[in-house]
Amino acid sequence: MVNKTYPEFSSHYPLLLTTLMKRPVKVYPNEVGVVYRNHVTGKYYRFTWIEWYKRTCRLANVLKALDVKPGKAGKPGDRVATMALNTHRHLELYYGVPCSGALLHPINIRLAQDHIIFTVNHSEDKIIFFDDVLLPLVESIYDKIKNTVEKFVYMSDKPGLPDTKIANLYEYEVLLKQESDEFEWPYLSEDNYATLCYTTGTTGLPKGAIYTHRALYIFTLHMIAYSGFQNDPTLVHLGENSIPLMITPLYHIHAWGAPFFYVFLSQKIVLPGTFTVDGFCELVQNEKVTTVAVVPTILALLLEYEDIDKYDLSSLVQVSVGGGALPLGLKDKIEKKIPGFTARSGYGMTETAPTTVGAFVKKYMRDWSKEKLDEVRVKTGLPIPGLEVDVVDENGNSVPHDDESIGQIVIRGPWIMEKYYKNPEKTAEVWYDEWFHTGDVAKVDEEDFIVIVDRMKDVIRSGAEMVPTVLLENLAAMADFILEATFVGVPDEVWGEKTMAIMKLVPNSNKKEEDLIKFLKTEGVDKGKITKWMLPKLVVIVDEIPRTSVGKFNKIEIRRNLDEFLAKAKEISTK
Amino acid sequence: MVNKTYPEFSSHYPLLLTTLMKRPVKVYPNEVGVVYRNHVTGKYYRFTWIEWYKRTCRLANVLKALDVKPGKAGKPGDRVATMALNTHRHLELYYGVPCSGALLHPINIRLAQDHIIFTVNHSEDKIIFFDDVLLPLVESIYDKIKNTVEKFVYMSDKPGLPDTKIANLYEYEVLLKQESDEFEWPYLSEDNYATLCYTTGTTGLPKGAIYTHRALYIFTLHMIAYSGFQNDPTLVHLGENSIPLMITPLYHIHAWGAPFFYVFLSQKIVLPGTFTVDGFCELVQNEKVTTVAVVPTILALLLEYEDIDKYDLSSLVQVSVGGGALPLGLKDKIEKKIPGFTARSGYGMTETAPTTVGAFVKKYMRDWSKEKLDEVRVKTGLPIPGLEVDVVDENGNSVPHDDESIGQIVIRGPWIMEKYYKNPEKTAEVWYDEWFHTGDVAKVDEEDFIVIVDRMKDVIRSGAEMVPTVLLENLAAMADFILEATFVGVPDEVWGEKTMAIMKLVPNSNKKEEDLIKFLKTEGVDKGKITKWMLPKLVVIVDEIPRTSVGKFNKIEIRRNLDEFLAKAKEISTK
Repeated sequence: MVNKTYPEFSSHYPLLLTTLMKRPVKVYPNEVGVVYRNHVTGKYYRFTWIEWYKRTCRLANVLKALDVKPGKAGKPGDRVATMALNTHRHLELYYGVPCSGALLHPINIRLAQDHIIFTVNHSEDKIIFFDDVLLPLVESIYDKIKNTVEKFVYMSDKPGLPDTKIANLYEYEVLLKQESDEFEWPYLSEDNYATLCYTTGTTGLPKGAIYTHRALYIFTLHMIAYSGFQNDPTLVHLGENSIPLMITPLYHIHAWGAPFFYVFLSQKIVLPGTFTVDGFCELVQNEKVTTVAVVPTILALLLEYEDIDKYDLSSLVQVSVGGGALPLGLKDKIEKKIPGFTARSGYGMTETAPTTVGAFVKKYMRDWSKEKLDEVRVKTGLPIPGLEVDVVDENGNSVPHDDESIGQIVIRGPWIMEKYYKNPEKTAEVWYDEWFHTGDVAKVDEEDFIVIVDRMKDVIRSGAEMVPTVLLENLAAMADFILEATFVGVPDEVWGEKTMAIMKLVPNSNKKEEDLIKFLKTEGVDKGKITKWMLPKLVVIVDEIPRTSVGKFNKIEIRRNLDEFLAKAKEISTK
Repeated sequence: MVNKTYPEFSSHYPLLLTTLMKRPVKVYPNEVGVVYRNHVTGKYYRFTWIEWYKRTCRLANVLKALDVKPGKAGKPGDRVATMALNTHRHLELYYGVPCSGALLHPINIRLAQDHIIFTVNHSEDKIIFFDDVLLPLVESIYDKIKNTVEKFVYMSDKPGLPDTKIANLYEYEVLLKQESDEFEWPYLSEDNYATLCYTTGTTGLPKGAIYTHRALYIFTLHMIAYSGFQNDPTLVHLGENSIPLMITPLYHIHAWGAPFFYVFLSQKIVLPGTFTVDGFCELVQNEKVTTVAVVPTILALLLEYEDIDKYDLSSLVQVSVGGGALPLGLKDKIEKKIPGFTARSGYGMTETAPTTVGAFVKKYMRDWSKEKLDEVRVKTGLPIPGLEVDVVDENGNSVPHDDESIGQIVIRGPWIMEKYYKNPEKTAEVWYDEWFHTGDVAKVDEEDFIVIVDRMKDVIRSGAEMVPTVLLENLAAMADFILEATFVGVPDEVWGEKTMAIMKLVPNSNKKEEDLIKFLKTEGVDKGKITKWMLPKLVVIVDEIPRTSVGKFNKIEIRRNLDEFLAKAKEISTK
């Protein structure tokens, strides 16, 4: 007795998502914590924190009944996948699965079908929880995953199961009702894996970034603490009174952390299913939403919405923008529409949980003019406190902070992914010399701000999505009339970037720009290799595509001479 | 190569104080980060962050040159003690020592000399760094510690060493000058011990609460993040633009965390040496101090200061109060003097790093009247997010949240001390049944606020100090004319609490109240067992001291009938 200590309750108290989940239940059990609006029916569903928590307890009991096994340090628990929109059920899964020790795999439903199938089979998902609106997608991939996935759970606001070929199908609400609303959450190891998030697959196949409870807990704490560092005079401090509308899909790298921050902060979370302009405006007005984080595309869509002036959006005082560069024209226009709007840029990726660099107003800038501050706010920013971020040349040396020299962004810190799940080769491509290599190119200005130059070496950002150009390149290369082709993003008011194809035809070919699109449709879209929104909107035929010394397409060179390419490009409808 | 991952730079990136230290140096190298005013000479010393950092690097090289060995997980490095006020040098030691892997032991110079000697020998301090003003104290204990301590380092704003009997004495500034201003900080284990803080010794001898880098890092992150939870409309968010005046001594349990928060937050830290009313006012005015954390006594002293109106204290917008209950009359008076004043209570102890429970305005209270909010702000509060805090009865069951039932506060979480250094017996007295037992008694009200009833089972809070009543009781028990005696705190406008002695004389004794004080002076103060400020200001002679069923002095009963005791008490000058 005398020598007994409890490291597990003190110095080694495990950093678990469970702690985040319990806070609002303890402090605000009877306040409405989760509001979900079905974007199809327009119906609202409201849950107090204790109701949401009890449903999550029931879910944990369901997982046990379905024989889902927890993991331990170094060994993942059974994989539980979701194919779901932003609903209260998806938020229940975000805690119920990892906090009971299993590994949550939120499937990115915007991936090409081939890639969805790949991720299900690669992660060996034991169960898939899916939304009713995604039934057709699940049915279309069913034959290629049914040997992996043992059980399917159907989530719907309407009772009853659909008529479908899917075997071993359960109904979410029925399963929940059968179980107790109490659950003894285990004191897991903080090294227990919590989530598995696949990349969009820039080099052919998606790779699974895997995160432990510890990594996500530390990420959450740093991101909340980060607000304590901020000096931007336009930031409004509302604390737990903030009411966030969670637009970023939960299948996009933890919805940028939203399910973790907002739950721990006990903020009323408003879930829109999926984004629609009218749903957005209605929810902001009805729920008095204060806070949104959006991609630029969302703002463009709002601006185009004719009925926007019919809504009272005045509660909105914190709008941050991520996932793509914000065109200044768009910024000006939206600021006139939404009074509380302030654009702030950020940078992160699937491998980094995601946030690593954020817009930052340094303390001595506090009294600068709005114009000067706006310039600062859309620079990419400074590392989040707690991370080491550097920009290095090919020899791994830091580039000079002169606003000119460019290099690769490298990162290390407690919420950077340690490895890709079951993929040591790809892990070795990003983790070497003690740093995680992002593949993104940046410069550093004289005030130490990291400014992304080449937004993403191999991808184009279109809306919230990433177009994997290597996938397109590999596909185009299969056309017998094409010698070589590459794809780059060009600025677009609505989508942030749109895809431009640059191709070199085989000698004496009489094929035209349209033929590329036709080929990509037949061989790509129709065969489930790419999705329709990945198709290029612009095509250029050239005599030579610039290449780097090592023979790769030289996209920096292409971007430098973008106007020349654009002048020759043909715009093609992909409808 | 293919299978290489870097857990030490990702999932197991160590949580070190080094990360906190590096932030301001990276972001604001050339801004003034540390300001020290010598409270004796009135002279100012200013350091940019890079200057402070380079001095800390020099210090780390000095430690190496002095053969200070780093520790590793589970094994403390060499102990380096400080006997110092709040100076830039003390802040350098707060990072230089732990970040190079050694164990920092900030000696509480307000302890009785016997206890100071005990802590030095118990922790086996290899070096003591001490301020010039503390030379007499070091000399007076020298003979009893010289076999333990190998080296002494003298810290002064004036060059030169004093004429003293202390052997192996070095001069801080000379040592620094001899070393390089670059240092390669080691990637320590996060389980490396960082600090050793002795309690005031409520049960006879001080006990050493020992903290790892991980514990202090996680504590810091949670405390900064905690500001993100706050809903109190009077809270002003200044971010890095806050300018804190660090009054709480660095030898009091991490100055309540100040050296960690303020450095990581890159806030300009103002150090007053020790607190004086004129120094306080001058520093607030000259440095435009925004933020202070004080014990109630400081406020009482400020109110009594005749010249207070001569200073411009308007920059002060964040005043928080801890370390003792705040009398409401004092609160009203100080609010009229200092415009930004808002009192907020808190609770913690040496064993908890220290903060565990803090004043909190729940989100639905945001629009309450000032009067109602003030009541909430001085209730003890809610657990800091991330900690588990409960109030339990003798069987370990949670007491009802009815504002009446009382129980013991128990805590667990990642910044609670795992054990007392080299003291398994005392560790077992506080850590059992998977909880740390504070020994403090509280009730829980219907809104789940934890309200301390018996502020500290065995101690009285006087100013920033704690009077260890068991020490007094043990001492008084040695007087041949006393049968038994106990000591309790009674409310005091200036000191928070003052000590009242309650004694039962031996039969037929003709001794008076004064005789107790005389005895405590001769046997206690003169022999270095207690210090003068611990002497009771009130003495009552009674026929019977109330006891509990288990035979302990029943202090709850005494407090309940405090007026009866006060009516019979005799006030005695201890001058």
